[in-house]
Amino acid sequence: MLNSEQYEQLLKEMKSTVYIDGEQVPNYWLHPRMKPAFNLIKATYDMAQSPDLDGELHELMTMKSNITGEKINTFLNIHRSSNDLVKRMKLQRALMRFGAGCFGARCIFGAVANALWAVTYNLDKEGRTDYHERFKKFVARVQMQDLVVMADITDPKGDRSKPPHQQSDPDFYLRIVEKRPDGIVVNGAKFQQSGAPYAHELLVLPTTAMGPDDADYSVAFTVPSNAEGVFFVTDSTASHAKFEAMPLEDIGAGEYSMHESAHVFFENVFVPNEQIFLCGEWHVTRDLVQLFTDHQRLASSSCRMGYIDLCMGASQSMADYNGVAKVNHIKDKLIDMSISVESICAMITGAAMTPQITKSGCVAPNTMCINAAKLYMNDAVLKTAQKTMEIGGGILLTRPGTRDLANPKIGPLLRKYHQGRDGVTVDDRLKMARLAETLSGLACVTPILSVIAAAPPAVNRLQFRFQTDFERNVKAAKRLAGIAE
Amino acid sequence: MLNSEQYEQLLKEMKSTVYIDGEQVPNYWLHPRMKPAFNLIKATYDMAQSPDLDGELHELMTMKSNITGEKINTFLNIHRSSNDLVKRMKLQRALMRFGAGCFGARCIFGAVANALWAVTYNLDKEGRTDYHERFKKFVARVQMQDLVVMADITDPKGDRSKPPHQQSDPDFYLRIVEKRPDGIVVNGAKFQQSGAPYAHELLVLPTTAMGPDDADYSVAFTVPSNAEGVFFVTDSTASHAKFEAMPLEDIGAGEYSMHESAHVFFENVFVPNEQIFLCGEWHVTRDLVQLFTDHQRLASSSCRMGYIDLCMGASQSMADYNGVAKVNHIKDKLIDMSISVESICAMITGAAMTPQITKSGCVAPNTMCINAAKLYMNDAVLKTAQKTMEIGGGILLTRPGTRDLANPKIGPLLRKYHQGRDGVTVDDRLKMARLAETLSGLACVTPILSVIAAAPPAVNRLQFRFQTDFERNVKAAKRLAGIAE
Amino acid sequence: MLNSEQYEQLLKEMKSTVYIDGEQVPNYWLHPRMKPAFNLIKATYDMAQSPDLDGELHELMTMKSNITGEKINTFLNIHRSSNDLVKRMKLQRALMRFGAGCFGARCIFGAVANALWAVTYNLDKEGRTDYHERFKKFVARVQMQDLVVMADITDPKGDRSKPPHQQSDPDFYLRIVEKRPDGIVVNGAKFQQSGAPYAHELLVLPTTAMGPDDADYSVAFTVPSNAEGVFFVTDSTASHAKFEAMPLEDIGAGEYSMHESAHVFFENVFVPNEQIFLCGEWHVTRDLVQLFTDHQRLASSSCRMGYIDLCMGASQSMADYNGVAKVNHIKDKLIDMSISVESICAMITGAAMTPQITKSGCVAPNTMCINAAKLYMNDAVLKTAQKTMEIGGGILLTRPGTRDLANPKIGPLLRKYHQGRDGVTVDDRLKMARLAETLSGLACVTPILSVIAAAPPAVNRLQFRFQTDFERNVKAAKRLAGIAE
Amino acid sequence: MLNSEQYEQLLKEMKSTVYIDGEQVPNYWLHPRMKPAFNLIKATYDMAQSPDLDGELHELMTMKSNITGEKINTFLNIHRSSNDLVKRMKLQRALMRFGAGCFGARCIFGAVANALWAVTYNLDKEGRTDYHERFKKFVARVQMQDLVVMADITDPKGDRSKPPHQQSDPDFYLRIVEKRPDGIVVNGAKFQQSGAPYAHELLVLPTTAMGPDDADYSVAFTVPSNAEGVFFVTDSTASHAKFEAMPLEDIGAGEYSMHESAHVFFENVFVPNEQIFLCGEWHVTRDLVQLFTDHQRLASSSCRMGYIDLCMGASQSMADYNGVAKVNHIKDKLIDMSISVESICAMITGAAMTPQITKSGCVAPNTMCINAAKLYMNDAVLKTAQKTMEIGGGILLTRPGTRDLANPKIGPLLRKYHQGRDGVTVDDRLKMARLAETLSGLACVTPILSVIAAAPPAVNRLQFRFQTDFERNVKAAKRLAGIAE
Repeated sequence: MLNSEQYEQLLKEMKSTVYIDGEQVPNYWLHPRMKPAFNLIKATYDMAQSPDLDGELHELMTMKSNITGEKINTFLNIHRSSNDLVKRMKLQRALMRFGAGCFGARCIFGAVANALWAVTYNLDKEGRTDYHERFKKFVARVQMQDLVVMADITDPKGDRSKPPHQQSDPDFYLRIVEKRPDGIVVNGAKFQQSGAPYAHELLVLPTTAMGPDDADYSVAFTVPSNAEGVFFVTDSTASHAKFEAMPLEDIGAGEYSMHESAHVFFENVFVPNEQIFLCGEWHVTRDLVQLFTDHQRLASSSCRMGYIDLCMGASQSMADYNGVAKVNHIKDKLIDMSISVESICAMITGAAMTPQITKSGCVAPNTMCINAAKLYMNDAVLKTAQKTMEIGGGILLTRPGTRDLANPKIGPLLRKYHQGRDGVTVDDRLKMARLAETLSGLACVTPILSVIAAAPPAVNRLQFRFQTDFERNVKAAKRLAGIAE
Repeated sequence: MLNSEQYEQLLKEMKSTVYIDGEQVPNYWLHPRMKPAFNLIKATYDMAQSPDLDGELHELMTMKSNITGEKINTFLNIHRSSNDLVKRMKLQRALMRFGAGCFGARCIFGAVANALWAVTYNLDKEGRTDYHERFKKFVARVQMQDLVVMADITDPKGDRSKPPHQQSDPDFYLRIVEKRPDGIVVNGAKFQQSGAPYAHELLVLPTTAMGPDDADYSVAFTVPSNAEGVFFVTDSTASHAKFEAMPLEDIGAGEYSMHESAHVFFENVFVPNEQIFLCGEWHVTRDLVQLFTDHQRLASSSCRMGYIDLCMGASQSMADYNGVAKVNHIKDKLIDMSISVESICAMITGAAMTPQITKSGCVAPNTMCINAAKLYMNDAVLKTAQKTMEIGGGILLTRPGTRDLANPKIGPLLRKYHQGRDGVTVDDRLKMARLAETLSGLACVTPILSVIAAAPPAVNRLQFRFQTDFERNVKAAKRLAGIAE
Repeated sequence: MLNSEQYEQLLKEMKSTVYIDGEQVPNYWLHPRMKPAFNLIKATYDMAQSPDLDGELHELMTMKSNITGEKINTFLNIHRSSNDLVKRMKLQRALMRFGAGCFGARCIFGAVANALWAVTYNLDKEGRTDYHERFKKFVARVQMQDLVVMADITDPKGDRSKPPHQQSDPDFYLRIVEKRPDGIVVNGAKFQQSGAPYAHELLVLPTTAMGPDDADYSVAFTVPSNAEGVFFVTDSTASHAKFEAMPLEDIGAGEYSMHESAHVFFENVFVPNEQIFLCGEWHVTRDLVQLFTDHQRLASSSCRMGYIDLCMGASQSMADYNGVAKVNHIKDKLIDMSISVESICAMITGAAMTPQITKSGCVAPNTMCINAAKLYMNDAVLKTAQKTMEIGGGILLTRPGTRDLANPKIGPLLRKYHQGRDGVTVDDRLKMARLAETLSGLACVTPILSVIAAAPPAVNRLQFRFQTDFERNVKAAKRLAGIAE
Repeated sequence: MLNSEQYEQLLKEMKSTVYIDGEQVPNYWLHPRMKPAFNLIKATYDMAQSPDLDGELHELMTMKSNITGEKINTFLNIHRSSNDLVKRMKLQRALMRFGAGCFGARCIFGAVANALWAVTYNLDKEGRTDYHERFKKFVARVQMQDLVVMADITDPKGDRSKPPHQQSDPDFYLRIVEKRPDGIVVNGAKFQQSGAPYAHELLVLPTTAMGPDDADYSVAFTVPSNAEGVFFVTDSTASHAKFEAMPLEDIGAGEYSMHESAHVFFENVFVPNEQIFLCGEWHVTRDLVQLFTDHQRLASSSCRMGYIDLCMGASQSMADYNGVAKVNHIKDKLIDMSISVESICAMITGAAMTPQITKSGCVAPNTMCINAAKLYMNDAVLKTAQKTMEIGGGILLTRPGTRDLANPKIGPLLRKYHQGRDGVTVDDRLKMARLAETLSGLACVTPILSVIAAAPPAVNRLQFRFQTDFERNVKAAKRLAGIAE
């Protein structure tokens, strides 16, 4: 397994094409906007190596591969049991509690790889393909080389009311533009790809269930991040600005706490046959999407448990520093947070323990349970952010920065007046206020991201529309009402 | 195992003393107020015997005893595994979906017996008692004789702000008034004992954690329901009235859907030594209460899943009968109900799959998970009842009765005008409206009962206050904020 | 103005045809099921006469007619100012706080009369009708004779997805079956007519906006309750049963607290011209329905303020009797109730103070404000009912009745053990528990009725769909985003 | 009245001392961080002059002074009627809908001046002071000179569980340190003073109700912003960073949409007698705080109505641009927003129309109504922000910036793939996404600020604890339960 220097070295050697703010940037991972997530990905390598950073995470970060039999990073595992799924939950909760930020979307490989594993297995049983064997080799290589692989899913979509083949521009969904004996050429883009530029390999697949007229859009494959025709454009939204305009120490959890994503372009990229895992078989896309969203909802909900843990810690600390730790409504709000996080924990555990068992032997979280968890998490995270702000108070919005504190005239006065209860240093109070600012969503996107990642609630709800056994309940009601069938 | 006739025969022979509306009633279980729960208890015996009533319930109703090795009723089981807990969940969900009512509180024995099993085991290890062996014999007998045993827990409590020994009347909590060589004499009462008069045996234990001054109140024992000094007074609230004033067919799910409870009085009742399982050991009462409330919260939350299932069925049927099954807000409300019930399912499963494993080997649901499930269920049930009413509409409140329909002048007109969409009979529409009325809480207490049974939410919340690892989160926040310990 | 004996005397003389439980009942208002609402209607007469029953209500119950200049009952007023609307709010809040029940739907005349007043005024301006003058005379007579007039609105509706003229039976909405020189003949039924049998006169109008093909259904008129062809069938639902099966003193607020409604049949009823206020003019039905629902939403929301007031009183008393008045979560719940009721108050006041001013000079509540109030009230009432139950506790479901207490053996024991904190009598605690039971919805339909009366929330929401100036907001957003129109 | 150039000229002449990021900045109002709110204050002057910017706001921005009889800016008015309060509501709603940002806290003068007006009037009636006449002259001058006056309220507070005189540093609340014949010397600081550096004058008053030992802290006065010893330190939080790091056109509503506040220090500032309005009279501070918080809750709730209006516009536009304007759950969310904003409108109107009428003749919003409005608004704003994000989707987090679009290689591709439905330009879609990003709280603090401004919910709730007539309800319940007093 790699250490964090080796991970960085690999990135260096690949020289992928990344644009930031309209400029191509060579060592892009060191750019202020890119560094926090990079730091946290490095931490995942360091944690796998030694317990120094965090003992609990050291345990959670590795496991034995059921393909190679070797020790691998947990993020690269094909899940064979409920316990594997529970380990994922624990890993992501603890890692978010550690860094308060996205670990470069390392989670997404697990979602996509497990889904492709199961779907290619079934597809090959139809007798016309050998995708599963190809994919198995790919996963084995990734595990052995200990790579970062990002999944690329979300197409630009154009008019959201229309399927791919009815769009005014055929490229609005990534598609096969040419089939050759030795491979295919694809063209298109994938948007909102969390962590994409930090990856060594990209694993591309369709964003939604396709119909028969969308066969050219039903494609899954892998390419290295530096493949010809692939380039990245990082997002340029307001939440990034602080990393460029502020001293790092003025940003709560500034070392890690940022979510970075990119637009990934595929300009007539050639994909050799052995890297193709789906090529026109639109009839399996529904299952594929169902499986990877189920996995990703586990990932996304697990992370936010760690986020709520941290909000509890920061809120309780701020209350303590302000001298109001014993106030009833504050204690109530902390209990509310605990109920929220344990409710999510219970639901994810329920999802993991009553899994979908695929024919390939790999497991996925129970669909109904995990969708319920995700919907509950959406609200829980926003309520927690709000409570964190209520407890933290105005200082989260109005605190002075290190430059202010360094001024000999105003610095001492700012210190004098930002004192909380006796026995707490001003520096500690300001540090915790910064962290609380970040957690509350005033300076990071976690709360809102939680709602829209792994599909927004409206999509989530569809699972219940399609999978609920409404008929069983109608029958029970009719019987009890005395109505003949 | 008994059949339902044998169960009733045993009741007949016992001649327990039961008062209804101020009068002692001999065959009390046939009284209109008592019969619905009695019918449903009988159904639990019939289901254990054959799949005729319900195939799914036949499977769920029996299992192999881990004490005697014989086939027993699932309600009498000592739980040794997560699967045992999941089976309980499924049994109770399906049984509530079957009958829309309380099955005479058969669930409560499981909660109390499993708790006493674990606590007496630990207590005997202290070396001064042999409660566990006594209790094992009792459970084995109950399993073999296939009895109904009700637990008696809730004391009258007097001033709720004071512990037992500070009450103005020492009997406000049931207590030991005399210790003899061959046993003890107890005096007091237990209130709100669901299903108590239908039992062959009573299993009595403290309602709350006791302190050193409350040793006389720290008592657990069993007596037969017809023991000298024991008598029952059934409750007389408004929700019973319909069974006495209305034709049974005018009551939605009238055959079963009622919750019956009673005040149980113990007037200087003698309890022989072999029936005593706790006698002054106040220091174990906290564990005992924790365990049985955890079990009972699983029971109570599982039941209400079946209730929500039924509400979905009745709501969808009413919408269909009214011609509005395709209306968006109705479909949305049905999906909301599905999300609710599957969220509860996920949390109970999570609780069952990460259980507390006691030293005795028996398991209990995870405390945090099951308390989260119960709190979620409280709200879910009330929202579901409200939605059922919104979808069902005014007819739930204003429907005519069979006596109205029988009148030759108004009957035909009532039929003419209560027609829904074409193709639905008026009778079916009225039958379903009756069921929906019952489910919505207009004619039954399930929604509100769900909130207060197994302790109200305020008590529930205390679990999170006491068991959350707040300190871990404060540490994580301080580390991330850069604050030295 | 009449006193309550004169009101009853008039009913006696009218000998209207009323069926209860399938039988025609002569003095139907004395039937146990009918008496509570009758008692509360009588109280409205007594309160108008003297301050003995309640000083505040005496003031609120009468005002000066702006038609006749005489003193009239406030329920019969045509509203000319915001203050008239506010007075209605205060009257209904205080009256519900007085009696905990529906005052025979006296409120509904105000809703319908004010709407017809405005709509007939506008219609007559079109030059073809003299409905407004007819209606003015009718209102003046009703005010002077101090009558109870009930509105009859809700048609049976058949298939809810179809308009009147497409129903499989043309009578599913009440309609004109014959037009004669001296009047019309109508046939059909009105369902769920709260308080209908207590009225001297019926004021009938369409339940929904009609289209051009529904002209025969666009009819408004008045007939006396004993008109030939008119008869009433009271509802037979489970919530009535307690009044027939239980001693009155065992029912919380049993003297008043019941909602009674009836099916009203019109079998080929002849209506003379001077009693007709709409006859085919379908184009004004939309305005008519809008106006009376706006008025009725004020009425319905105002009532429930009094209900929440009472829940606060009962909850606080129960907490006090149980010795837990100082517990934080109970104080919080009481504050929540206060916030709820004052939020409703603020919204209704806002609706009254920014009224719709019709061309006729009479006013109606602001549509958006009053619909917002009603939607808020729906939830507030259910949450309040839930809190009342949580605070009141199990005794609401399990209390003994007077027959139990009268038994010499068990009565004294029941008294002994139902003691709360010292200094509170058992009788007071049981009395308050009965009231809390009624308020909590366990023994009355107020909570759920609140949700469905004056149309369910889904209909309520439509007001916002149709009346919101969405376009204004889009323009503001486009301007601010820098997008050219 | 001044035009916007004259307003700026006055600021220039005053040369107040303002620190930004640790440096004193001369023309601070042009600093990127300060300019948005400055722009919006200037707009308030321009709108008063002419209808060019916005006709509705031109009407709302001025009124006739009831002191001088001259035309004044509405923000400077002493409110004498319900209509004055309603005008404030409409002004603030429309102004927020115009600029999506804080207009430099011009609202706060109205809150404080109206409160001081009433309280000094009462105080002078005690016969020992002439504060009211002094204050009248001050208000008249401010109105005639058309100044911006900011109120300074929030003290640093130290240990929040202790009153001012028990703090470990006596300066933690601003206080009188010396009394001279011609005036007083004050020392201390005021934190979180929205818009403070943009003001010509500061109006200082206590932040909370004071006790007898806090007389030195019971002080109210005015000083010009450039008084000796007064200086400002602007806040340095993450939400400012975007204005320094990003092109202005990449920030949604970047011209205006920012909230700026500052720490204001008073280092032994001398205040001449005629500028003092309270000096030790601690017994009136409770009334003073009650009045200005009631006023400010009206201001803060009114603003957010305009914010919700804008969210509706931006959400509807984004849905339209994405081709999903007709989707049901989106229409539902827009209706939810409309219900929210009209509920707030109704409550504020109710508060304005049933005002507190002070002895001085000036009015304040009804306490219960306006606190209910504020609490409702807290939740409404956060839910609206969440819905805006759900409808807007991932593009709010991941959109490219103008620098990206300007690159010849990636710019055209970014444009190609960010196309929405046909007929919408990519630029328009990106512009609206930027605005939606700002509104959703991802790039501005409005949602969370709404919750904590004018005191957090926990303080809000106290109003209901203290002002609810709990006793009236207990009496009503006891009467109805049949319990003797």
